[in-house]
Amino acid sequence: MAVYTEVPDVELQSFITSYGLGQLLSYKGIAEGVENTNYIIHTDSGPFILTLYEKRVKKGDLPFFLGLMEHLAKSGFSCPTPVRDQSGVMLRELSGRPAALISFLEGFWVRRPQLNHCSALGRSLAELHLACSNFNMSRKNSLSVTSWPGLFESFRSEADNIAPGLSNLIQEELEHLQQNWATDLPNGIIHADLFPDNVFFLGDKISGLIDFYFACNDLLSYDIAVCLNAWCFEPDNSFNISKARALLNGYQQVRKLKKVELSTLPLLARGAAIRFLLTRSYDWLNKEMDAFVKPKDPSEYLRKLRFHQSVKDVREYGLGDG
Amino acid sequence: MAVYTEVPDVELQSFITSYGLGQLLSYKGIAEGVENTNYIIHTDSGPFILTLYEKRVKKGDLPFFLGLMEHLAKSGFSCPTPVRDQSGVMLRELSGRPAALISFLEGFWVRRPQLNHCSALGRSLAELHLACSNFNMSRKNSLSVTSWPGLFESFRSEADNIAPGLSNLIQEELEHLQQNWATDLPNGIIHADLFPDNVFFLGDKISGLIDFYFACNDLLSYDIAVCLNAWCFEPDNSFNISKARALLNGYQQVRKLKKVELSTLPLLARGAAIRFLLTRSYDWLNKEMDAFVKPKDPSEYLRKLRFHQSVKDVREYGLGDG
Repeated sequence: MAVYTEVPDVELQSFITSYGLGQLLSYKGIAEGVENTNYIIHTDSGPFILTLYEKRVKKGDLPFFLGLMEHLAKSGFSCPTPVRDQSGVMLRELSGRPAALISFLEGFWVRRPQLNHCSALGRSLAELHLACSNFNMSRKNSLSVTSWPGLFESFRSEADNIAPGLSNLIQEELEHLQQNWATDLPNGIIHADLFPDNVFFLGDKISGLIDFYFACNDLLSYDIAVCLNAWCFEPDNSFNISKARALLNGYQQVRKLKKVELSTLPLLARGAAIRFLLTRSYDWLNKEMDAFVKPKDPSEYLRKLRFHQSVKDVREYGLGDG
Repeated sequence: MAVYTEVPDVELQSFITSYGLGQLLSYKGIAEGVENTNYIIHTDSGPFILTLYEKRVKKGDLPFFLGLMEHLAKSGFSCPTPVRDQSGVMLRELSGRPAALISFLEGFWVRRPQLNHCSALGRSLAELHLACSNFNMSRKNSLSVTSWPGLFESFRSEADNIAPGLSNLIQEELEHLQQNWATDLPNGIIHADLFPDNVFFLGDKISGLIDFYFACNDLLSYDIAVCLNAWCFEPDNSFNISKARALLNGYQQVRKLKKVELSTLPLLARGAAIRFLLTRSYDWLNKEMDAFVKPKDPSEYLRKLRFHQSVKDVREYGLGDG
């Protein structure tokens, strides 16, 4: 939970006035978002989210993120949309921070996703990939396979404090991934962080996707690999093949995966597992005692990685055709 | 900032259904409220606040607090109102906590109150006192003059860690207050915690008062004394006599203070200062390293106490008649 930047009322009133949405009626900091400060804003025109971008987000990336959200919304894909002020500007400054006013998306995330949710997720992910295909900006994945060794080096000497043998395990896994990583696969813009808390539902239907602040250009099926890790394991870390099947079948209802995308999926799933194992390990070892945000347990992703290492064939993800 | 209790979506959906307010559309934990967990809830019928009462609030006091809010709203005094479910119940349970759904009050608190705000506050405080007068429940002030010595004992040995000599200063002040405390003054239900963040404005007008979770029976003018401390000092802790005059005159536009209430106001202001000096000192010395809520600096109230100790006459609060 995080309100890193407190915005004074007078400053906010003048900020909101410039959007032509009527009077500011209320604002409350919300305890969501690890990276940024978010407020729920009520105006005469309805509710909005105000986001102040904190240090972990690069200012230079914001035109890409905001542009992407606007592009998606214009394409009919449901997600929060940055509002332009009366001069047509999306990216503003408030209380010394880059800031954007963003449309309020109704819906809420599902704490215990079921098969129907995984199936809807698959379809929505494929729709996202298609809707991104004609967006004309790009952003390198700063957490891609080539950045993992550098990230690992930054905490390598302390890694075994998380789990005995972790340092060697990561070292060997990174070597394997560097040597075997798939490159000749369909690529484009991916969400790259599509955990259940970034997918809002109303009833059985997805009302929209949120939090595009890791979006980047990479292999499309890597996005699926992230979701397999985030959606298809049970709280005891056992893999639920039915959820994986629902996810993959849902995706393929909208965009058919190529044979090579299917055959390399176990490798990409290992990659996605190590990406979160690395960042969670780093956050775990560098946690601040008085932080608002409790770091997530890295060992969850160690167990997921081990599962994917054991996978010999994509059929183990519930598909008939490897 | 505080979301102490995470509410699962399925549980919340069934909870909201029992109010007959339509579908749950969204819910977000908000970073306000030191004592309780609060969510902004959107339903088909509009926005609401969901409050889960945490350990610091006594469950037995909740019927008083919720009853008072309902009484005030029915009397035309603007404040959040508990919503009754379809069986007529206000106080429910959710995720193992006492819980209430409460109407959403538009408006926001003023970070730097000016004279007009102090004047409006005074009028609203007097209106509150009048509106409470025919409420048929009561609650003892658990932080009144008789409870201060016990609270002091709980941290006395560490008090000088906050400021050298603090222990002696509090000891002498408590003796003075015990010996001279006013008793024969108009009493009734007071808010007892009317800091600027509990008073919502829309433009120059108060849209309502919030956070009645310290409300209790005590001297009415003690509520004014709390406000003198909370509203009439500048950020450098200098006393602003014009703000005090605006507050007192505003109050007297609605309810004329008796001569004895005026003459004892400096004493009550010392009492209000020590009440917050004591609780802030306790919280400061007992702060948890990983707490969501940063404890407030007690020394602010030490300086306020010293000011009131120097006051010889209520005219120093801006009134012509001592």
